[in-house]
Amino acid sequence: MDLERTPLLTDLYELTMLQTYYAHGMTEEAVFELFMRRSSHRGFFVAAGLDQGLEWLETLTFGDAELEWMRRSGLFSDAFIETMAGFRFSGRVNALPEGTVFFAEEPLLQIVAPLPEAQLIESRLMNILHYQTLIASKAARCRLVAGDTPVIDFGMRRAHGGEAGTWASRACYMAGFEATATCLGSARYGIPPTGTMAHAFVLAHDSEAEAFERFARNHPDNVVLLIDTHDVRRGAERVVEVAHRLAQDSIPVKGVRIDSGDLAANARMTREILDEGGLQDTRILVSGGLDEYRLETLLADGAPIDGVGVGSNVNTSADQPFLDSAYKLHYFRGKPRSKHSSGKTDLPGRKQIHRHYDGAGMMQGDTLGLMETADAATGLLKTVMENGRRLPAGDGSLADARERCQTQLHALPEGVRALREPAEYPVTLSAELEELLTQTAPER
Amino acid sequence: MDLERTPLLTDLYELTMLQTYYAHGMTEEAVFELFMRRSSHRGFFVAAGLDQGLEWLETLTFGDAELEWMRRSGLFSDAFIETMAGFRFSGRVNALPEGTVFFAEEPLLQIVAPLPEAQLIESRLMNILHYQTLIASKAARCRLVAGDTPVIDFGMRRAHGGEAGTWASRACYMAGFEATATCLGSARYGIPPTGTMAHAFVLAHDSEAEAFERFARNHPDNVVLLIDTHDVRRGAERVVEVAHRLAQDSIPVKGVRIDSGDLAANARMTREILDEGGLQDTRILVSGGLDEYRLETLLADGAPIDGVGVGSNVNTSADQPFLDSAYKLHYFRGKPRSKHSSGKTDLPGRKQIHRHYDGAGMMQGDTLGLMETADAATGLLKTVMENGRRLPAGDGSLADARERCQTQLHALPEGVRALREPAEYPVTLSAELEELLTQTAPER
Repeated sequence: MDLERTPLLTDLYELTMLQTYYAHGMTEEAVFELFMRRSSHRGFFVAAGLDQGLEWLETLTFGDAELEWMRRSGLFSDAFIETMAGFRFSGRVNALPEGTVFFAEEPLLQIVAPLPEAQLIESRLMNILHYQTLIASKAARCRLVAGDTPVIDFGMRRAHGGEAGTWASRACYMAGFEATATCLGSARYGIPPTGTMAHAFVLAHDSEAEAFERFARNHPDNVVLLIDTHDVRRGAERVVEVAHRLAQDSIPVKGVRIDSGDLAANARMTREILDEGGLQDTRILVSGGLDEYRLETLLADGAPIDGVGVGSNVNTSADQPFLDSAYKLHYFRGKPRSKHSSGKTDLPGRKQIHRHYDGAGMMQGDTLGLMETADAATGLLKTVMENGRRLPAGDGSLADARERCQTQLHALPEGVRALREPAEYPVTLSAELEELLTQTAPER
Repeated sequence: MDLERTPLLTDLYELTMLQTYYAHGMTEEAVFELFMRRSSHRGFFVAAGLDQGLEWLETLTFGDAELEWMRRSGLFSDAFIETMAGFRFSGRVNALPEGTVFFAEEPLLQIVAPLPEAQLIESRLMNILHYQTLIASKAARCRLVAGDTPVIDFGMRRAHGGEAGTWASRACYMAGFEATATCLGSARYGIPPTGTMAHAFVLAHDSEAEAFERFARNHPDNVVLLIDTHDVRRGAERVVEVAHRLAQDSIPVKGVRIDSGDLAANARMTREILDEGGLQDTRILVSGGLDEYRLETLLADGAPIDGVGVGSNVNTSADQPFLDSAYKLHYFRGKPRSKHSSGKTDLPGRKQIHRHYDGAGMMQGDTLGLMETADAATGLLKTVMENGRRLPAGDGSLADARERCQTQLHALPEGVRALREPAEYPVTLSAELEELLTQTAPER
């Protein structure tokens, strides 16, 4: 069972529900929507993960191992297992192109498919889109705060498993990061790879100077030296010594990295030492426990920092490690449907989103209306899959998504971009949708 | 490139450092240790992930796709790429058996291998062990708070990717959960699968009663009905109606699930309705935003709850989404080594852990000493791999790990188990280690 392809990466209840749906011929077209509920820590979200979601849908089949597990479990009928042996996803997908900025209650994905197909895919589809959206949304905040300073993803080691580490490279790059330290992220998605050295490298040598010089001569094109293994001041001084020897062989020290202590103070001290040593072109990179909040402080007071590496705080979206994502049935058998319990009222019907801009190109507000009467050309949700096959609209490149994201981030109203207590972006319901909402009062 | 096997699931700097190590023949034996620094939110950790770590080490090779990526990157010499084509892990691994309770600064894993081998594996090994340990440690807190109430893992959809979702099933089961909703977790690790139904199932039917009855007749052995799609009181009343019809065909309603609102109040109301309706044996499960803190409140006031499902808060370890894990070089070329910068002083040398119990079998404290002079029979770190091959000691079953964890959790001093501001468990350094620490003052 291939982790990245198996349909068993789902919740058991998807399968038990399906058995009943098939048993009762409940295979008419259903519409499910994936959306996020409001988050007090995020003024906006960035849609990500669609490419992996569509790839999974296109290849979704039950192999022998999966069917055998179903048999052994004793939970399913033979007839149902046989049905699943022939399972394919045959539906339509409408979605926000990756990199699109969106808001609470707006569908980022809409599945139109026979009820059992649309139901089965819930768990994994959410698993894919939720995580990448979570990280792209976090990374976008770092990108906005960092201004022109390059930000790099360093966090794979503490990401939650390998898929998360790899997807985080992708989501961060989409949000505008410059590079990733994760080789697989680079290999799979064509993201520039980057890296310096670990403290262990310095410790494995008998002196810091020897470690620096060996590394530099072995990687003459990309010399970035880690200077805080023992003492940052001495580390910076050693860089100057070594740089003079390396200069004789035309090897430039491109950068140094500081990973501990007061990063701003260390960067200032290091800048002075490097400048006095004639290394005005050597860049200073910092890392260690950074996120958008600490970046804001660090960069606000003008510390001489030329690049930042972020890790665990971003890869785990530490201040908000999950979003209140939902995948809900909103239309079935010709009827809008929605859950109304306990104050969480979902919006029924098949929806479309329209966005409004002011004269300066800044986003003013969105309207949530119904797909049936919407203008497809201007609606944000695009049809990216039909009959279980991707359409060209579902084939956007990562570079396009990155560009889209940058453009939209800069069109966001200031207050909505705020790191703390962001303003609520205006999302209004169309008159039709309002009416539908009052009509579909809870069944009693 | 298979996500679960590829050596490119690593940081670029591991490869650039390796190129220098090989170029300079720095292939002598090194000792790296993986440990956690102190966490104010966790009084103890539970070791997990070793099985996946060892499996990865045993199968670690560079395939054609990996070598091709290295070539295309332009970052490596031909000689180095050729070396990596023949790469195998040939080292020894000493580790805490999975399910072992451990504390800050104690190595949960010790790698003894030629320097480049021990270095390369850093990123992925930490990625594997850090996440499972993070989740087992979180889940153990839920297990302790829940007492005898079964706890179930429901969180795959919002876990960070598929590997995290599947590993969380395993880590939670190790920590004492009863079952998992994730089919792949069940299929891979033999964990009991469990599930009820989604709100969509109820919404897809024209009445709640019809949804309940269809589901029950289709899954007569495991009828658990979700009663909060519209209104919990009406949902419970419908369960009673339906149960009477089902009883005529000897189909019992095993349980109901409540997923929203005031769970304690809803459980009390539901219990009354079920009891009055003659359904005293029907269990009440609750879910929705639960973690150890909310479980404590929920169960403390005696709400009639027979089982709980936990999801995102546990699968993402939301109050502490990553641990301050470190993988550090502690011995190389006959010399203990450690990083001393900025107040974070690592403990040098090859370490072993001994644990002390009082007469009642409660844990009193640990001693961290040096492996060279330690009693191997009683030390907590066991040799689980030698020459890159697993030893029988590295082949423990998940059931054993689960039992080990339960035993140790109940031997933990009360204060150390506390959910908030846990007491610090006494970990003392042996005289030898203290001496070594003073000897290895920072190189200046």
